[in-house]
Amino acid sequence: MQLKIPVISIVGKSNSGKTTLMVKLVQELKSRGYRVATIKHSHHSFEIDKEGKDSWLHTRAGADAVVVSSQTMTGVIRKTYQELPLPEIVNTYLTDMDIVLAEGYKTLAIPKIEVSRSEISAELVCKDDQKLIAVVGDKTPGIMIPFFPIDGDISSIVDFIVLRLKGQGST
Amino acid sequence: MQLKIPVISIVGKSNSGKTTLMVKLVQELKSRGYRVATIKHSHHSFEIDKEGKDSWLHTRAGADAVVVSSQTMTGVIRKTYQELPLPEIVNTYLTDMDIVLAEGYKTLAIPKIEVSRSEISAELVCKDDQKLIAVVGDKTPGIMIPFFPIDGDISSIVDFIVLRLKGQGST
Repeated sequence: MQLKIPVISIVGKSNSGKTTLMVKLVQELKSRGYRVATIKHSHHSFEIDKEGKDSWLHTRAGADAVVVSSQTMTGVIRKTYQELPLPEIVNTYLTDMDIVLAEGYKTLAIPKIEVSRSEISAELVCKDDQKLIAVVGDKTPGIMIPFFPIDGDISSIVDFIVLRLKGQGST
Repeated sequence: MQLKIPVISIVGKSNSGKTTLMVKLVQELKSRGYRVATIKHSHHSFEIDKEGKDSWLHTRAGADAVVVSSQTMTGVIRKTYQELPLPEIVNTYLTDMDIVLAEGYKTLAIPKIEVSRSEISAELVCKDDQKLIAVVGDKTPGIMIPFFPIDGDISSIVDFIVLRLKGQGST
């Protein structure tokens, strides 16, 4: 399935700093006026509302989908029989975004930025991945690829992402 | 906007028992094999995940949409600038359902079932509404309309709803 919106996945070992990078990227892209969505795997169940609240009760009663609608947010939780493929998520729910940042999805053929800390691992997870477009880390990787220091200015990474967005119409 | 899926709204005064009825209807419709969604207004903000969790951090960082995806559920929270109209919610997110049960939306021209308890109010909220299709209460209403006792068997109300679904293709 062709992705209708540019997606970049942030990959890396556990505790390497993926979420911290995601948050900084969202903030910087938003400050530049882009519409940004994020996608995150979860291995635990989650709720749109607190235990005992109405929408929680609807879910527990067996509803296939539960929507909570307020003036500032719309929340939808749907039951699925298997994890939805990322392209289906993007093309169903996120077609009005400028960019989607995903976390994980390291086996998928989508552009990836790897976060790497030498104290966690000397090896890149996606070293041989043709879709690896950059590394953000505390040590230059042993491969020829754009590198950004993990404690450096987030704007240089976002410049790099925006260039890709503009240059290719799709990353 | 034409609704692509049958929607019935459960209306009534606060504390009349709307949520209890919703839960029973969901359970009974599910036990008969229907795909059921619910829509609920909310006046408070809500989160797809707990404070401090990744998707919560993404939302707080300013993401316009946050998706959490697991093997059994997909959750999407989107920022909106005004409350999405019910037809837009139904036609965007719920087109694969057999029926949608909404709570509230009492001014909308959609079929409604009113829950009424005489201890809360003697008056029906939607007494003059042409779209009121039934009353569920503890006392027969003073108008000619199908009536179901609030403590009666839920299956008779669901029989009534299913007849409408089958008879009209749309409620």
